[in-house]
Amino acid sequence: MLFHVQMDVKIPDTLPAEQADAIKAAEKARAIEIQQAGKWPHLWRVVGRYANVSIFDVESNDELHALLSSLPLFPYMTIQVTPLARHPSAI
Amino acid sequence: MLFHVQMDVKIPDTLPAEQADAIKAAEKARAIEIQQAGKWPHLWRVVGRYANVSIFDVESNDELHALLSSLPLFPYMTIQVTPLARHPSAI
Amino acid sequence: MLFHVQMDVKIPDTLPAEQADAIKAAEKARAIEIQQAGKWPHLWRVVGRYANVSIFDVESNDELHALLSSLPLFPYMTIQVTPLARHPSAI
Amino acid sequence: MLFHVQMDVKIPDTLPAEQADAIKAAEKARAIEIQQAGKWPHLWRVVGRYANVSIFDVESNDELHALLSSLPLFPYMTIQVTPLARHPSAI
Amino acid sequence: MLFHVQMDVKIPDTLPAEQADAIKAAEKARAIEIQQAGKWPHLWRVVGRYANVSIFDVESNDELHALLSSLPLFPYMTIQVTPLARHPSAI
Amino acid sequence: MLFHVQMDVKIPDTLPAEQADAIKAAEKARAIEIQQAGKWPHLWRVVGRYANVSIFDVESNDELHALLSSLPLFPYMTIQVTPLARHPSAI
Amino acid sequence: MLFHVQMDVKIPDTLPAEQADAIKAAEKARAIEIQQAGKWPHLWRVVGRYANVSIFDVESNDELHALLSSLPLFPYMTIQVTPLARHPSAI
Amino acid sequence: MLFHVQMDVKIPDTLPAEQADAIKAAEKARAIEIQQAGKWPHLWRVVGRYANVSIFDVESNDELHALLSSLPLFPYMTIQVTPLARHPSAI
Amino acid sequence: MLFHVQMDVKIPDTLPAEQADAIKAAEKARAIEIQQAGKWPHLWRVVGRYANVSIFDVESNDELHALLSSLPLFPYMTIQVTPLARHPSAI
Amino acid sequence: MLFHVQMDVKIPDTLPAEQADAIKAAEKARAIEIQQAGKWPHLWRVVGRYANVSIFDVESNDELHALLSSLPLFPYMTIQVTPLARHPSAI
Repeated sequence: MLFHVQMDVKIPDTLPAEQADAIKAAEKARAIEIQQAGKWPHLWRVVGRYANVSIFDVESNDELHALLSSLPLFPYMTIQVTPLARHPSAI
Repeated sequence: MLFHVQMDVKIPDTLPAEQADAIKAAEKARAIEIQQAGKWPHLWRVVGRYANVSIFDVESNDELHALLSSLPLFPYMTIQVTPLARHPSAI
Repeated sequence: MLFHVQMDVKIPDTLPAEQADAIKAAEKARAIEIQQAGKWPHLWRVVGRYANVSIFDVESNDELHALLSSLPLFPYMTIQVTPLARHPSAI
Repeated sequence: MLFHVQMDVKIPDTLPAEQADAIKAAEKARAIEIQQAGKWPHLWRVVGRYANVSIFDVESNDELHALLSSLPLFPYMTIQVTPLARHPSAI
Repeated sequence: MLFHVQMDVKIPDTLPAEQADAIKAAEKARAIEIQQAGKWPHLWRVVGRYANVSIFDVESNDELHALLSSLPLFPYMTIQVTPLARHPSAI
Repeated sequence: MLFHVQMDVKIPDTLPAEQADAIKAAEKARAIEIQQAGKWPHLWRVVGRYANVSIFDVESNDELHALLSSLPLFPYMTIQVTPLARHPSAI
Repeated sequence: MLFHVQMDVKIPDTLPAEQADAIKAAEKARAIEIQQAGKWPHLWRVVGRYANVSIFDVESNDELHALLSSLPLFPYMTIQVTPLARHPSAI
Repeated sequence: MLFHVQMDVKIPDTLPAEQADAIKAAEKARAIEIQQAGKWPHLWRVVGRYANVSIFDVESNDELHALLSSLPLFPYMTIQVTPLARHPSAI
Repeated sequence: MLFHVQMDVKIPDTLPAEQADAIKAAEKARAIEIQQAGKWPHLWRVVGRYANVSIFDVESNDELHALLSSLPLFPYMTIQVTPLARHPSAI
Repeated sequence: MLFHVQMDVKIPDTLPAEQADAIKAAEKARAIEIQQAGKWPHLWRVVGRYANVSIFDVESNDELHALLSSLPLFPYMTIQVTPLARHPSAI
């Protein structure tokens, strides 16, 4: 079951740089892990913004929330989730 | 080169039903054609709305505009285009 | 799997009154049918507006879109879908 | 009398982590208390966000405000309240 | 129990003038009726707009919706309802 | 001459608690003073928010601005002022 | 007492051209009349839009609403009124 | 003196096709004329929309408004004008 | 050449009070200076807000930007500029 | 391939002045470098705001994102990218 997810990242200025770097490294590792599990089939950078557009493939809403909230950057992201269905004109 | 495209369709109430049906049939045929040409790799329905989220793969901005404006529903759609880049955490 | 759905109805002024009444009657019948099937556990009127707030309980995004687009008022509604998950503080 | 309530939580970055944890624990206890009193019949997590959608069942506007402002996270939440009425098509 | 209600009126251009006048006259009569019943204690015109700001005093959400939807202009109004509570600094 | 005023309060997290409490106490005293002078005939709490909806009765725009900017919470409020006129259907 | 008023004009496409022209001519005459009475000291065109920014000088909110609603284009305008006060740095 | 101008075109569905085509042809001729006069140095299509982003080079605000309102599509466009200044980092 | 300018001031809470006061005093002096030069013919306070509505009379966009960015409060203001033209109904 | 880019700069108040100055100087140097490479053909200041409107000329979305994210002010900017195509009426 597919979901369209947009994530906008805003790390607060008060977070020390080394702490921010550690979170970003952990984020990257976790993102790769979820992709390798087949749950995050598409991940694109939005040009000019610290943001991504993603497609998630999950069994349920609960699983999707568990995945998203497991991301180390979760507290610093604005996330917008849109459920997708099969399009009648898709081949 | 990938672009994220969201299309919201709003057919005016004044358009006769048979004319609307003809446009929708032509839209479906054209959508399949563009997909088969490899230019429209993803096409999803947004749940609960007469709208889609799509990914286009084109050579240039001009090509993308030519494809979108060739859609029979183009005059009745609000289209939002977002350029995508490779994400550093994508596998 | 639960989804929060808000529907705002706007019937165009150009629709003849008897046709509008027929659609509303069909809408009511279909809404009762979906509720009786256990797929639409909650349906509330928003005070002061021709709108409702609803909870749907479905197996998949595709099923939800099929249900929503089967509503006779679907062409005249603006629908906003929000996926819900279990809340850790819910009893 | 039912009210639709959406709560978005934003804990400021300047709040020490242990203080934030204490407030969250108190929030959970108070949320359970209100639910057990039958005043908060539904509480759902919005997927991908530190937010909930809730239904409150109260005697009056004053009671609703008293309940909401008794929540330990109240100073850190943006709350949107929508009064609900019985829907003519609800079974 | 008090509610803040804002009503913006937009009569469609396609409605014949005499029909619009009849609806406005009926609206005025119904507005006076509800005020005389003590349910609509304040009704003000917003300067420069075909809109009003009102205070309703009702027993329940259902009563408020019944009153608002009984207004002849109801199909042509955008209505926004805000529940009010007693303010701790009010004398 | 009546004005509709909505005030949303947002006290910054960096303000020490005792200082905030002192400002709130001064705010309450000033609010009572203005009400007793007959200039602030209505003051209601918006349910679920640190906000109020008010009606002011003043001689001029200058007097209204003087009153609002005399409030101790003025630097921490977003204030929206709407001029009101007599409504032709008001009794 | 000064008010800042912005008026955006949108004449419906269904209004016959000669009727629209008559309304515009009447609007111009009425605008000149109000200006000559000293009630409308400033009237500017917003570049690129069928809109104006104006300053009105009136005795009361009721007078302002009476003037604005006397404009022949009033039913076709979106009007936004902002009360002005003397600025402490104005010379 | 440069101005950034964005024009969004929305031709009403009620306008007969041949009339719309005549207006579009006249628009094109006028656009070329203004460009050749050196007043409209840049004109770009926004991908996926019936809209353009333009740069105008004029002597005054009045001249800009005269040019824009001389466009045959002016009644059907939403135009947003932004004054530009020299950027200190521009070469 | 006239421009409509709206300035909203938001001084950060972290700025020490004496520094803020010095900036405000310098702002007032500079505002008077520009007014006396005939470049800022109108300056009004927006009732209830730390904001002003102004009319500037300048030779060019560059001059306007130079004036606005010379204001000591410039770094703390959100400024919105609208070019004005002569209105055909202005007397 | 042309892109319309708008950049709004917001340097946090917590950044020390000398650090902010160093970033601005580096930004200017990098902006000149990209312009000299022919990738940034137009760069204008928006009057009254710490913002610019720009045109970029690049080979691909990836190149555009690389250029934008190489700007020293990138972490402090809100950037909006719009793909442009050739306009049929452009000469």
